[in-house]
Amino acid sequence: MNNSALQTDLYELTMAAAYFDNDLNPPATFELFVRSLPDDRGYLITAGLEQAVEYLESFRFNPEQIEFLQRQPIFRHVSREFFDYLGQLRFKGEVWAVEEGTPVFPSEPLLRVTAPAIEAQLVETYLLSALTFQTSIATKASRCVQAADGRLVLEFGSRRAHGPEAGVLAARAAYIGGCAGTSNVEASHRFDIPMFGTLAHSFISAYAHEEQSFVDFARVFPDDVVILLDTYDTLSAVDKIVAAGLRPSGVRLDSGDLLSLSKQVRAKLDSNGLQATKIVASSDLDEHVITSLLSEGAPIDIFGVGTALATSKDAPALGGVYKLVEFGGRPRAKLSQSEDKASYPGRKQVFRSSEAGKYLRDVVALESEDYDAEPILKMVMHDGRRVIPQTSLAKVRARSAGEVARIPESVRRLKRPEGYPVSISSELKLMLGEVRQRFARRDQKLVA
Amino acid sequence: MNNSALQTDLYELTMAAAYFDNDLNPPATFELFVRSLPDDRGYLITAGLEQAVEYLESFRFNPEQIEFLQRQPIFRHVSREFFDYLGQLRFKGEVWAVEEGTPVFPSEPLLRVTAPAIEAQLVETYLLSALTFQTSIATKASRCVQAADGRLVLEFGSRRAHGPEAGVLAARAAYIGGCAGTSNVEASHRFDIPMFGTLAHSFISAYAHEEQSFVDFARVFPDDVVILLDTYDTLSAVDKIVAAGLRPSGVRLDSGDLLSLSKQVRAKLDSNGLQATKIVASSDLDEHVITSLLSEGAPIDIFGVGTALATSKDAPALGGVYKLVEFGGRPRAKLSQSEDKASYPGRKQVFRSSEAGKYLRDVVALESEDYDAEPILKMVMHDGRRVIPQTSLAKVRARSAGEVARIPESVRRLKRPEGYPVSISSELKLMLGEVRQRFARRDQKLVA
Repeated sequence: MNNSALQTDLYELTMAAAYFDNDLNPPATFELFVRSLPDDRGYLITAGLEQAVEYLESFRFNPEQIEFLQRQPIFRHVSREFFDYLGQLRFKGEVWAVEEGTPVFPSEPLLRVTAPAIEAQLVETYLLSALTFQTSIATKASRCVQAADGRLVLEFGSRRAHGPEAGVLAARAAYIGGCAGTSNVEASHRFDIPMFGTLAHSFISAYAHEEQSFVDFARVFPDDVVILLDTYDTLSAVDKIVAAGLRPSGVRLDSGDLLSLSKQVRAKLDSNGLQATKIVASSDLDEHVITSLLSEGAPIDIFGVGTALATSKDAPALGGVYKLVEFGGRPRAKLSQSEDKASYPGRKQVFRSSEAGKYLRDVVALESEDYDAEPILKMVMHDGRRVIPQTSLAKVRARSAGEVARIPESVRRLKRPEGYPVSISSELKLMLGEVRQRFARRDQKLVA
Repeated sequence: MNNSALQTDLYELTMAAAYFDNDLNPPATFELFVRSLPDDRGYLITAGLEQAVEYLESFRFNPEQIEFLQRQPIFRHVSREFFDYLGQLRFKGEVWAVEEGTPVFPSEPLLRVTAPAIEAQLVETYLLSALTFQTSIATKASRCVQAADGRLVLEFGSRRAHGPEAGVLAARAAYIGGCAGTSNVEASHRFDIPMFGTLAHSFISAYAHEEQSFVDFARVFPDDVVILLDTYDTLSAVDKIVAAGLRPSGVRLDSGDLLSLSKQVRAKLDSNGLQATKIVASSDLDEHVITSLLSEGAPIDIFGVGTALATSKDAPALGGVYKLVEFGGRPRAKLSQSEDKASYPGRKQVFRSSEAGKYLRDVVALESEDYDAEPILKMVMHDGRRVIPQTSLAKVRARSAGEVARIPESVRRLKRPEGYPVSISSELKLMLGEVRQRFARRDQKLVA
């Protein structure tokens, strides 16, 4: 990781300077949530909290960074004290958040930060990109895993991710969302995720004879080898495997008509005593292609999903926002004219009701309200220190699978899902009304 | 930067082990190219080469990483010598590439690596993600800048990027593609890119009185302040600016109907002597929205483009591939049955012809062929060392603007562009035919 306090938008720093030089730095609360779901998505699976906590724990500006900022013309009228303040700044706030791997729905805070206004403001950009990116990918993975209906899904998309580091984070999030592993070695190393890998066309085309490449590769990996079939001709490649007396644990199809090829390859393998050899498919897959292949009876055992997963290609961004809801103990909200961009004031909690093991409905309410339902935001940092234990990703993944199973089927559906019922408490609605009225009165006074 | 040699797919390492243990490590050449363009794109603008070169220069496995790999069950039959070899491995190859900021088209190599097969293979994943991501973003930026028709475009998308590091790289690529700057402070610091920032709704809603927030903010940034108008009511916000006697250099619209609001705001500013105050707009913009706003006469001076730009939202991945074209001095190719996945063998060069300052056509040919046209692949590394000077990004950006202007207008068009004429040399076609025939003969022999 190379967290830097400069990984932020400039306006966070100009606002910080303006808060400071106006002597305005009371406790403030911000909430991070997603306004609406992308097409065909009925739920999100949260991920990225661990990176958010690590960032907050290590948040600081080093002297060279401070000097860089001080040099910028835009800060020329800002007091020297502000930069001294930045130099000693550490994140000392309290953070509540939804556990990684949990289903969440629009308008529900995934994370809530309460800290001196400047601290809470400065961390906005990083928190949004850390949480919403991994949440996109965990969600996409969950969808692919659902489509695969019990077969393994592997994350193979590093080469198409938004830079090498995005590939590592995508692998992490995909594992939380239910993938069995990743091809990304750094992700495996850093996060203890199972890794998988076979071979590419290049190895095979390096050889003058395809069958020799198979034999030579299998000699180095005798226990567990997956052979790639489609460098030249997929079905003759199976003949060559048989002729060479190889017994690969798997074969991989990476181009062509996966439905007919998988059936022909399966038949050829079976008729040559290779019933135990699994078929891995990996050509431009996503949840919809997987669903369609399986509905037509494609005998594919393992799906390697690349681009569509590592970039969440059909929905590469979530409309994540980080909104001020309380300032100096008073509720605050942005009261935009366009309703879709308005947000509710006050510190919130999400209360989730279940029945017979299935999730039934959520209420977004003030933290102080009392509902006979599970509050899903938990305290994760206090006084700037982590108060939750680090959990192995394997546990996070296992818990998440259980959580996804509790979402109503109509909401889990991969196409045109129903909306999950999320209501806003009447106290919240009342509070929004009050903030609106207060503003209307002030506005009248000024404009009159 | 935190490059790690483990930022790769596992299969690069299994192939490396198989090459090594089969004593097969002659010079190999790989080429990186994009097979086809996303919808509505007629050209790509390359970016990311600098990161690719830095990675190759610093490529090495440290002892802890080697130990991690050795522990993996998949490597249990791999020789100890392989891991010793990895431990001392440095990239010693030769790299040819297209300069950053250059227009490229499908099938044209952006980068060509010649090195011992293992080295050239191991770097595949990183090179693909480094180059294709930034190329996506530089291309998207170029499109937004074209749409803005001389007005400034700023990159504001860090919060929606694929993690914090992707945000920094997106800012870099967007600048190459023609943006005037970014909101990302780390990108400004690391790459010397102009940065821009105003303030968010949170600062304004922190105050009981909107006008007080304007006054307090402007006091800290007296020379150059941009005031955000849409926290409550956009037009009354202008009244408050006038009433407070402020003379902001800009005002920002971030929600609502940007066309009608920008016209009303412009009229109100002008009638109050604020003709010099610029209008910045920043609400879910992309090249098509910008085109439409300007065609309707929206008086917007600066466009802040966020999500659509930092994620290249309509085309979040390019089908970039890295193909073996020569191995031990002999031409190689993947001869997939599906034509779209086949590729040409041999070391290539792209020859670009111009007429009256406009680009006319490209020929992809063997490096050894002779054309009376500009070869666009240049040597950038030799013996693993950089042989090109580092250029300031401002220069790269200025050169790129000139390059884009040389693309035929029909190809630059933002919707349904024409394809740029790229032909494959007859020598290349001949060579592909020979490789196919050679394979067909061998295949016959074996299957017979």
